[in-house]
Amino acid sequence: MSYGTLEDRVRRKSLLSKVMTAQDCIPFFKNGMNIGWSGFTPAGYPKEVPIALADHVEKNGLQGTTKYNLFVGASAGAETEDRWASLDMMDRRWPYQTGKNIAKGINTGKIRMGDKHLGHFAQDVGYGFYTENGRMDIAIIEVSAVTEEGGLVPTSSCGIVPELVRVADKIILEVNTGQPSFEGMHDIIMQEKPPRRQPILITSATHRVGTTYVPCDPEKIVAVVESKRRDKGRAFADMDDTSEAIADHIMDFLGNEVKKGRLPENLLPLQSGVGSIANAVVGGLTKGPFKNLTVYTEVLQDTMLDLFDSGKLDGASACSLSLSENPGFPRFFENWDKYADKIVLRPLSISNAPEPIRRLGCIAMNTPVEFDIYAHANSTLVGGTRMINGLGGSGDFLRNGYLKIMHSPSVRPTKTDPTGITCVVPKAPHIDHTEHDLDVLVTEQGLADLRGLAPKDRAQEIINKCVHPDYKDIIQEYFDMACRITLEKGIGHEPQLFDRCFKMQLNLAENGTMKIDNWDI
Amino acid sequence: MSYGTLEDRVRRKSLLSKVMTAQDCIPFFKNGMNIGWSGFTPAGYPKEVPIALADHVEKNGLQGTTKYNLFVGASAGAETEDRWASLDMMDRRWPYQTGKNIAKGINTGKIRMGDKHLGHFAQDVGYGFYTENGRMDIAIIEVSAVTEEGGLVPTSSCGIVPELVRVADKIILEVNTGQPSFEGMHDIIMQEKPPRRQPILITSATHRVGTTYVPCDPEKIVAVVESKRRDKGRAFADMDDTSEAIADHIMDFLGNEVKKGRLPENLLPLQSGVGSIANAVVGGLTKGPFKNLTVYTEVLQDTMLDLFDSGKLDGASACSLSLSENPGFPRFFENWDKYADKIVLRPLSISNAPEPIRRLGCIAMNTPVEFDIYAHANSTLVGGTRMINGLGGSGDFLRNGYLKIMHSPSVRPTKTDPTGITCVVPKAPHIDHTEHDLDVLVTEQGLADLRGLAPKDRAQEIINKCVHPDYKDIIQEYFDMACRITLEKGIGHEPQLFDRCFKMQLNLAENGTMKIDNWDI
Repeated sequence: MSYGTLEDRVRRKSLLSKVMTAQDCIPFFKNGMNIGWSGFTPAGYPKEVPIALADHVEKNGLQGTTKYNLFVGASAGAETEDRWASLDMMDRRWPYQTGKNIAKGINTGKIRMGDKHLGHFAQDVGYGFYTENGRMDIAIIEVSAVTEEGGLVPTSSCGIVPELVRVADKIILEVNTGQPSFEGMHDIIMQEKPPRRQPILITSATHRVGTTYVPCDPEKIVAVVESKRRDKGRAFADMDDTSEAIADHIMDFLGNEVKKGRLPENLLPLQSGVGSIANAVVGGLTKGPFKNLTVYTEVLQDTMLDLFDSGKLDGASACSLSLSENPGFPRFFENWDKYADKIVLRPLSISNAPEPIRRLGCIAMNTPVEFDIYAHANSTLVGGTRMINGLGGSGDFLRNGYLKIMHSPSVRPTKTDPTGITCVVPKAPHIDHTEHDLDVLVTEQGLADLRGLAPKDRAQEIINKCVHPDYKDIIQEYFDMACRITLEKGIGHEPQLFDRCFKMQLNLAENGTMKIDNWDI
Repeated sequence: MSYGTLEDRVRRKSLLSKVMTAQDCIPFFKNGMNIGWSGFTPAGYPKEVPIALADHVEKNGLQGTTKYNLFVGASAGAETEDRWASLDMMDRRWPYQTGKNIAKGINTGKIRMGDKHLGHFAQDVGYGFYTENGRMDIAIIEVSAVTEEGGLVPTSSCGIVPELVRVADKIILEVNTGQPSFEGMHDIIMQEKPPRRQPILITSATHRVGTTYVPCDPEKIVAVVESKRRDKGRAFADMDDTSEAIADHIMDFLGNEVKKGRLPENLLPLQSGVGSIANAVVGGLTKGPFKNLTVYTEVLQDTMLDLFDSGKLDGASACSLSLSENPGFPRFFENWDKYADKIVLRPLSISNAPEPIRRLGCIAMNTPVEFDIYAHANSTLVGGTRMINGLGGSGDFLRNGYLKIMHSPSVRPTKTDPTGITCVVPKAPHIDHTEHDLDVLVTEQGLADLRGLAPKDRAQEIINKCVHPDYKDIIQEYFDMACRITLEKGIGHEPQLFDRCFKMQLNLAENGTMKIDNWDI
């Protein structure tokens, strides 16, 4: 199937003189360069040039001697960033990643990764905070089209393209003719730096306030490469009983908030993370009583198409349309007219900005690794030290939403014990979201509404509602003991015992389960 | 000296029929009520009625049997809230407090306090998140005047008055005729709830976009009480060598940012916390090279008058004018014309809202209790469990500022060791601000610029620049050991050893110093 030629897509005709192959681009790249890509959660990332660079390194045995610092809005497809990692082509990587090889590189100290609230990352790239001279040597940007004026029309995500076109010295465009053009779906604002920054005037989820393209200085563009490769979006985990039970608790809670007059009947714009629980929540909404819903989030996934099909979703805003390679994108492309005008894709610096999230009053829902009895949550580091993917936008939404909800199964299995890990712990070994941010915690066991509760009341509510029965006595014993010891000393606002607060985690490392017999030191 | 009569101040004449004494108001109050006050960091809080209630409880032996839940923008004067605590009149207290008795009540479990980002607290009160029915039984509000239309003109702070007038069932006004009227200094926006919330159109620190009074339904007002009591603002700690060394590092850093083009020559709006380091920083600016400065913060203190006097400060926005009772307020009142039109007082829900803080690009500077080698900071709980005052607005500014700076002495004394406490630790026992929020950490030893650094690089930079010489080897040894052990196992993105990460804190509790001989378990 043809979606138009390169010449159709590149309407700024002077750029056609810069058309070349991905291999032709290799000489632009030098060891140690700072490189920015378009893309966000494998959607809209460049493919031809990163793959050509990887092939070049592999063919010429340049592993470990040719390394780049890679900055992308979020993760990119495994065939690009993870392959770079497998070829030891990566020094620094910000602010989020996915892939076995890249995770290995990070946790063995070969790759220097840092994560940051995604909404911060986007603006901080624009502020020049990530490189010595504040610039990126090269940006590689996948586009649907280039307008007559040289405006870049993104593909399935906007990512940090607005910031990259400003701070990049050179720009390589990958024009994707292997899929329909997304022109018209984006809403781009080019934010000025303080003190000249202006209000972001978005007052509803799908309110359009910008342009459909990213203005770009054409003289920066050094190459135009045609690509026919599609996003390698993952198919997501099916729902399971645990996820469905969590979704049910959330649906009940939202219904009750409507009854109490704290939420309108069509709720408020929904933000939902990724994973099986998020899918179950969207599934719950598809079957549920709420109508005229809107979504203001960072990633739209396959289940969102179901919600559109149910007739309950009026419109959705996101940074990326991160559908599965199959069946997501084919389904979307075949039903373009049904979905396209209800979706707005925004730059990361807008989709994740506190300003619209707070103004619209998003209902933020995300899955952590674990949370503790005082409502601190770990979203990033398994066991407190091992990076999974990164913080993502969870903090952008959980800090600024109208309601801040985190949901998790109450337990996870180990090799030897099907409930060997409790996701509710006395003290989180790493904290990405603090007690000051979270309103509601949910497991399949129940939902704890923590609004207005002092720390010790919060702890008891979390133990009562969220902890798995296998761990209830253990954690209650810790909490009672911590209260007793610290209150006696007059230091018990938020009781912890620092000689044993991580005893369950240490037991897991040694004995494969967090179930301990006693709290002795 | 006379500042006008009650009749002059209350221009809504129908309210004069509700004039009564503070004692007359006692019957309005019942055990268990939810009560909101005006005020913010002892400025603009009600005095006559809270003191009359305390006298009543004391005189009638009602200690412990008459308790209220108290919600104020931040702390109130010790003669009010701390006296309530000393008389066991307080059940719940949100979200910030000051006073020996109240702290004791909190840390022994008698008072249920919760802290929250102040900017969240304000809006969450408006959302009805803190009480069962979403309302406050009574609000006591200190005002300068009441307009003809019944608009309330605040005094030295705005606090959560806009939210209180909406959610309170009854309102008691304290008209303060013991000081000049602050009319004209406030800029009030009454924010609608989502989904009807509109942009906050502030585009410079002192930009006025609202009204000079808080619109209020006059039928809610049940009493008007005259007060001549002034705010009991504290005089602040003098600067010391440590604070001045920290301020010097910050001045150098800001100068360098200007040189690199990352800050304009007049910097960006400054937010500065309270305490001796904050005062030293303002002192540094008074003597420093920067001109046409602006301030967008939550509290203006005495030193800010010096900055005005130096001619370097063009204008300041805050939630409260929290001057010392003496000499601050007399100095201010005597030079009213010099300062008044350069100051804008805003509601907490605006002064601390992410939207203007991020748009204006505030330079956020705050003092924590301690921070750790990965740049997590504890702002609230000494030893990880004992509440001092509360989170305040530190997170509002540190999350949303253009630059996020925390400053602390590198060490503090214990009874037996002048450097017995290190404020830079391997792992913070409590975390209010995460590694994802902080850009720059400063002690008198030096300044660590952490922007763009991965966790292990960040740790080494913090150890090099911020740690006191007495602790450098100890902390370096921990970090090296943690890296070695976790990297070997492939779990070392952010190395910690959970069997000993709090060894220094435990040693402090046992032996009065954080200096340990070894890291053995």
